[in-house]
Formats: sequence, structure tokens, C-alpha cells
Amino acid sequence: MELVTVREIYRDREKYLNKEISVGGWVRSVRDSKTFGFLVLHDGTFFETLQVVYHDKMENFTDICKLNVGAAVVVKGILVPTPQAKQPFEIQAEEVEIEGASASDYPLQKKRHSFEYLRTISHLRPRTNTFQAVFRVRSLIAYAIHQFFQDRDFVYVHTPLITGSDCEGAGEMFQVTTMDLADIPKTDDGKVDFSKDFFGKATNLTVSGQLNGETFAQAFRNIYTFGPTFRAENSNTTRHAAEFWMIEPEIAFADLQDDMILAEAMLKYVIRYVLEHAPEEMEFFNSFVDKGLLDRLNHVLNSDFARVSYTEAVEILEKNNDKFDYKVSWGCDLQTEHERYLTEQIYKRPVFVTDYPKEIKAFYMKLNEDGKTVAAMDCLVPGIGEIIGGSQREDDYGILMGRMEELGLKPEDYGFYLDLRKYGSTRHAGFGLGFERCVMYLTGMSNIRDVVPFPRTVGNCEL
Amino acid sequence: MELVTVREIYRDREKYLNKEISVGGWVRSVRDSKTFGFLVLHDGTFFETLQVVYHDKMENFTDICKLNVGAAVVVKGILVPTPQAKQPFEIQAEEVEIEGASASDYPLQKKRHSFEYLRTISHLRPRTNTFQAVFRVRSLIAYAIHQFFQDRDFVYVHTPLITGSDCEGAGEMFQVTTMDLADIPKTDDGKVDFSKDFFGKATNLTVSGQLNGETFAQAFRNIYTFGPTFRAENSNTTRHAAEFWMIEPEIAFADLQDDMILAEAMLKYVIRYVLEHAPEEMEFFNSFVDKGLLDRLNHVLNSDFARVSYTEAVEILEKNNDKFDYKVSWGCDLQTEHERYLTEQIYKRPVFVTDYPKEIKAFYMKLNEDGKTVAAMDCLVPGIGEIIGGSQREDDYGILMGRMEELGLKPEDYGFYLDLRKYGSTRHAGFGLGFERCVMYLTGMSNIRDVVPFPRTVGNCEL
Repeated sequence: MELVTVREIYRDREKYLNKEISVGGWVRSVRDSKTFGFLVLHDGTFFETLQVVYHDKMENFTDICKLNVGAAVVVKGILVPTPQAKQPFEIQAEEVEIEGASASDYPLQKKRHSFEYLRTISHLRPRTNTFQAVFRVRSLIAYAIHQFFQDRDFVYVHTPLITGSDCEGAGEMFQVTTMDLADIPKTDDGKVDFSKDFFGKATNLTVSGQLNGETFAQAFRNIYTFGPTFRAENSNTTRHAAEFWMIEPEIAFADLQDDMILAEAMLKYVIRYVLEHAPEEMEFFNSFVDKGLLDRLNHVLNSDFARVSYTEAVEILEKNNDKFDYKVSWGCDLQTEHERYLTEQIYKRPVFVTDYPKEIKAFYMKLNEDGKTVAAMDCLVPGIGEIIGGSQREDDYGILMGRMEELGLKPEDYGFYLDLRKYGSTRHAGFGLGFERCVMYLTGMSNIRDVVPFPRTVGNCEL
Repeated sequence: MELVTVREIYRDREKYLNKEISVGGWVRSVRDSKTFGFLVLHDGTFFETLQVVYHDKMENFTDICKLNVGAAVVVKGILVPTPQAKQPFEIQAEEVEIEGASASDYPLQKKRHSFEYLRTISHLRPRTNTFQAVFRVRSLIAYAIHQFFQDRDFVYVHTPLITGSDCEGAGEMFQVTTMDLADIPKTDDGKVDFSKDFFGKATNLTVSGQLNGETFAQAFRNIYTFGPTFRAENSNTTRHAAEFWMIEPEIAFADLQDDMILAEAMLKYVIRYVLEHAPEEMEFFNSFVDKGLLDRLNHVLNSDFARVSYTEAVEILEKNNDKFDYKVSWGCDLQTEHERYLTEQIYKRPVFVTDYPKEIKAFYMKLNEDGKTVAAMDCLVPGIGEIIGGSQREDDYGILMGRMEELGLKPEDYGFYLDLRKYGSTRHAGFGLGFERCVMYLTGMSNIRDVVPFPRTVGNCEL
């Protein structure tokens, strides 16, 4: 017999009420009196549970009574409305088949467990309410992002993970090798002999797909990447992971204004999608994880994002320097405290800060006419600070070469990138959205370890 | 002025005909007479090009005439129908603004280039017809896969890339490290001191997300992964890359039959999606890359996939052993020649081969009642052979332990995996689809290097 899912029952209840159905799921709780008992089932397809009433006319009544939390069962019975009860309906079971028992040392008992403890059992924590909600919403956000870009005919590009260019700041990259670490081949002059390695040269895990993505934007006009990136930073914070996913759209025949319009539309699209497709989960986060969450997200949906130049923003912040640990002046990078002050206190809505000093931004950002600032933008949102960083890209061959020389970058390492400025260069722009930061923002979860299925951080690489 | 895309013009032509529009794009060819000229533009949004007529009343007429292939321009003019011509319409330009010129050594001239040559310029090849088609279709296939699973409420899980378990066959894995390769830390007894490494232990790049995926299936019931996987195999073939993407759904309360139903539905969904959303590209492949492609795909769409047990398949193949380089007998692994013979000659449609000898399949596959075979399935398709491999998973704790002991696997390396059999174990199954192999199958492209944006193979890690 086909199993009906709890999602189908909740979403389309009229179809199933007063009918015989079969449901498979895992036991969240069992309680019995002498002649009957209750099972609360969760089947993983829906946030809510389903109550099952069983009785002593079943051959395996005592076995059912003895079930531990976590056991898997298949229940056959009639779905009946329960207008007087907390739950809208229950199954009056005819049969409860035990699919797989659960040992009595099951680590997820009814009591509430701390997130810290649950991190130690990452293979079981998705069975809890919080992580059911987190990982379903994570999945929906990922899909909403794909849908947003695909509906606009953007081409999804898989940029490479293993990269041979060590020009992005090798100190913070993971090396990839097949050489025997116990016996690294050396050249005659005692250096590592990378000619013996799998790729015949030193390789690392990527920190960004942007430069590769730009090559595709100059062919397809509008593209996006969505894939893993890596940072070997030795920083043990609630916001950093060694392995995380990034979304990096890149648009040609487009400038910084177009870039901001795209970023704002994307964020709103994703928020709307999740509110619509996971109302139960979002209510849960709002009630138990982050009380102001829904108000905050709805406010973002209904606001036009503000825009302010870095120079103006610094003027505003300087007047409030007494409030900050780190004092602001023109030329400094903005800290989270400044970002949050701008978005939460000054604008009370998301804000794009644009046109940063070139010294604190990357070499590829387009130099403004003032010769001092670049056409960069950071999108700051209440409750978190920066969520998106982007820029228009330098599309002038000569200026780009000049910037690279200033910074001591070798043109020969960037031949493909310079080619884009030599053969049909266009205005173009793009941004990066850290996927986990986006999940944290939409769920209110405050530790990145709790929005990644199997987090990788300094000293932690379990499962 | 807002730029209209070539896609919008082709898909919604009535809206734009006889109106003034602006289009940005790259020049595919230029030819001029004394008083006027033609530009063929491609804007990356659509497979077809757009013809532009320009004339000597423009101030920059001579500059336009001198444009090289590859230059970027923005054209303003009237879109007029051209009923007598090959193309359905053209733009009669009022202005042609040169966005970015193209140097005369542009590597993509009008002539046809070999795929081998184009691999050496992976940053420019997406500008050619073939790679426009390949990478747009690749993007559409990726999205179709997400849509298929999300429409069915599967949860998308990002399984980790860096893994600490070296239990999947370390010889073929890439190691990941932040240790100084020139000076690897050693313990007192001369071994590599992984306690000094980023994660405090030896780590590799994953070869499969399946075991992690199973933990989520036992919480969400239906999940899928879609992410990069890695093989450090020293094999230089047209079908192997060191870095590729995999899709691995995993379904709980489901057996091998459910698994095959899912795989068949997914393949058909993806084929249908691509035929519908990229008709121009698919026609191009059918005409210029693989003549029988559309017939073959339509045939798959309209066939019920056949099913045959390994044992029966071997009986059939043994009768035809004179046709094979590698002779078949019960217990041997099937080679591509056998797989293609089955699907192309015997069944003339896709076929699932099931229930393989346990010796040639992985430890986690469910042991059948005969004690000799496992509930595995390979899906074979005409023109390629195996495209999907899957199985029902062993859900019995004792039997799984027994299999692991037989194979010398250490239970302590699989604690989390065994836990799934201890706490509410369910029938469950899943399969793996190599994404690149799927792209090759749907496009008719015969070398994996030509369906990956920036391929990584032995000795090759460019850009």
C-alpha cells in the first residue's frame, strides 16, 4: 500500500479524512493506558506531527507499548477529525507495523537538547524540530535562488573547486595534493616538486568563482554560480566556516546600479519564497529562536533599500564615534558595529553602501572618476550587517593593468582575465552572497555550525 | 535605455517588431559596402544571432566597419521583419555604440575550431555556438533536476566536500591540508603529524555524499544531494574527470522498486525539460554533434524502461560471447560493451539490471535472500551504457556488521552509519547520477572535457 505523507495530509486534508490510509514515520513519543495508547509520529515531510491511537486488539500491542523514541513504524488506519483536540486530526490505527525499533540509548529523548550537544551528533540532529526547520528552509532557500536566476534566463555555471591559480591569497587556502605527505618529492634544489603531483603543479581549493564566472558573463551576458568555497582561516567564530556555499551572479552590459537592483530583487524573492513555502517552520523560528524574525523579514520585503556612499556613511558614523569600540574615519574598513548602526539606527532598513576607497577593496573593482574610490557596494541588513558584497568590475585593460601593478600582481597569472578586457570588454558587475549567512539571516540561527549539515571549522571535520 | 535581449526578441517578437529598441551584444561578423554594412550580433541570451544594418550617415561609420570579431556593441534602431531573408527580422540601426573593441588577434575567428584547440582557451570557448549550446543546456539540466526533486518535496542537502573519513578508498582521493608541504610536521616516530593540520587529522575530498545523505533521509524521508565530488584516478579517458558533480537522492520507506521508478521518472523529466526549454540548442546538437540524438531521446521518453536481473542478463550475454572482447560469466562485472549490447541490441531501450553478485558491489547494499546477490540496480541507456547506479541499502544492523567484517572495514569508522540501523531503521534506497555523464548523454558530446566549464584531469588544472 502506498504511504501517504504527513505533508499531503496537512495540505490536502479533505482528500484523506475518514479514509483508510497508511503512513510511515518515526516515533516522537509513546504513551499507553491498559487498553490503548498514543504514538506521536513524525515522517520528515512536514514540520507538524501526526497522532496515532492504537489499541489492545492488535497482536503486537505490548510491543508497540514498549517502543522507544526514534523507532520507525508503518501505521494503517482511518484519519479522523478531532475538533476538540489540539491537533486537527488523528489516525485510529488498525495496524502498527514496526519497521525498525530504536535502542533505549537513543540520544534524542523528549527533553530539550542544547545546540552544542546536538553538534556532537550531526547525523541525528536533523530529526529534531529545530534542525528539521533549519535544513528544510536551507533547501528551500537554495531552490528559491535557482528559481530566481533561472526565471530570468541566467546561466548556472559550475566554476571549478580545485584551482591552480595561487593568486588569490594562498595563505588562507587549502592545498590539494596526491603526493605522499610522509615523503614529499623534492627537486634537486630542495623545493617541493609539484611536477610529481596529480595536476603537475600546486593546487588549492577555491575561495571564489568570480573570475571564472566573469569569463562566462562575457559569453552568456547573465550568469550565476552556486557552489562550495573554502577558507583556511584560523578563526573560531560563530560566523566562519572552512567550507561554505556561495552564490555569485555576474551580469554584462550592466553597472553598479543594475547590480544593486538585482541584489535587492533576489533577497526579496528569497524571503517571499520561504515565507510562502515554509510558514510552519518560520513561525517556529519566530517563536523559539528569534522573536522579531518575521517582523524584520516582512519589513525588508516592504522597504526600498536605502543607498548611501561610503563617504557620506563615514560622515554620519563619525558623528556617532562615541558609540563605537572602533572609531570611524575616512579610509577605514567598516566593522560590523558600524554596519549595524547604519542599517538599524540610521536607515532602519537594508542599505547599500557604495563607492569605497580603493585601498580597502579588491583590484578588480572599477575605479571611479575621482581616482580614489571604486564602484563597490555592500548590502547591509538589520540584525546581521553585511550580507552581500559586490562591485562593478574594471573593464578597461589599461586601468586594470595599472591597478595590478600597484598591488604587485603578476599580469601573467591573469592572462585569461585580461583577455576579457581585450576582446569585446563590456561594463559588467556582480556580487557574492554567502549562502550560510543568508540561511542564518532568514532563520534567526546565530551560529553557522547550526545551519550547515556537517560543519567544517578549525579542528572539526566529523563524518 | 533598457537593453532588450535577443531571447526576448525571438520569443516575443510581436512586442518588438517595428519599434525602436536597443540591444547589446558581441559581433560575430562584420561586412560592409561603401554606404552601409551588416553586423551579426550575439548577445549570449539566445542561441540565434541578430542581424544589424548600419549606414554611412553614422558619425562612427568607418570605426564600425573596422570592428573585429568579438567586439562588444550597443545598437539602437528599429526591428523590422525581413520576410524574404533567412533570418526573420533585422535591426535597422540608428546608432552603433562601441562598448569594447576586440583586438585583431582574437582567437575565435569565423572558421571552425577543433574542440581540442578550444580546450586551450576555456575562457573564450563559451562564445562559440557549440559551447553556448553545451553550457546553456548544462544549466537547464541542473535546474530541471532541482525542480524535479523540489516539486516532490525532497530536501536538498549539501553534504560535505572535505571529509575526515578515509574509509572510502584513500588511494584515489585528493588530500586536503594546510601544512607546509616543504616541511611536513612529523611525530617522534617519524610519521606525519596530522594534529598540526587544520582539522587536526588527515582529510580528503569526498568521493560521494551518500553515507551523509542517508543520515538526512532517516530524518526527512526524501532527500537529494547535488554537489561536486572528486576522484584522483590516474585515468586519461574521455569519460573521467578529477572533479565532477553528482546527484544522489536517498529515499526512506522505499525499496529497490521505488528507486527504479524514481530514476526513470527523473531521467524522463530532465529530457522533457531540456527539449522544451532549449529546442534551438537541441536541434543544433542533432545536426552538428550527434545525428541520432533527438530520435534517441524521444525514444527514451516514450519507452517503459526494461528490467532484467544480472543473472538473466548474464545468461543472455553468454550466448553472445563471441561478440565481446571481454567474455561474460556469472560473477564478472559488466563492461561497457556488454551494457551497450543489452540496452541497444537486446532491449532497444533503457534497461535496469538488478541484483548483482555481492562481491562486485559496495558493502552497504542490501543482501538479497539468496545470500549471494544484493539489491543493486544499474540503469543502462542506448549510446552510453551505465548512466545511473543505485541500490537498496542494508538496513539490518547485524547483517551490515557482518558484511563490514567480511570486507575488513572497521565498525568504529562507521559509528554514525551503524547508528542509523540502531535507531529507527527503515527500508531505504538511493542512486547516483554523474551529472557530466548526464550532460554528455543529452547533448551527444563525447568528451567530458567539453561539458565542464573548466575541466580538471590528470595534469590539467588551468584557470
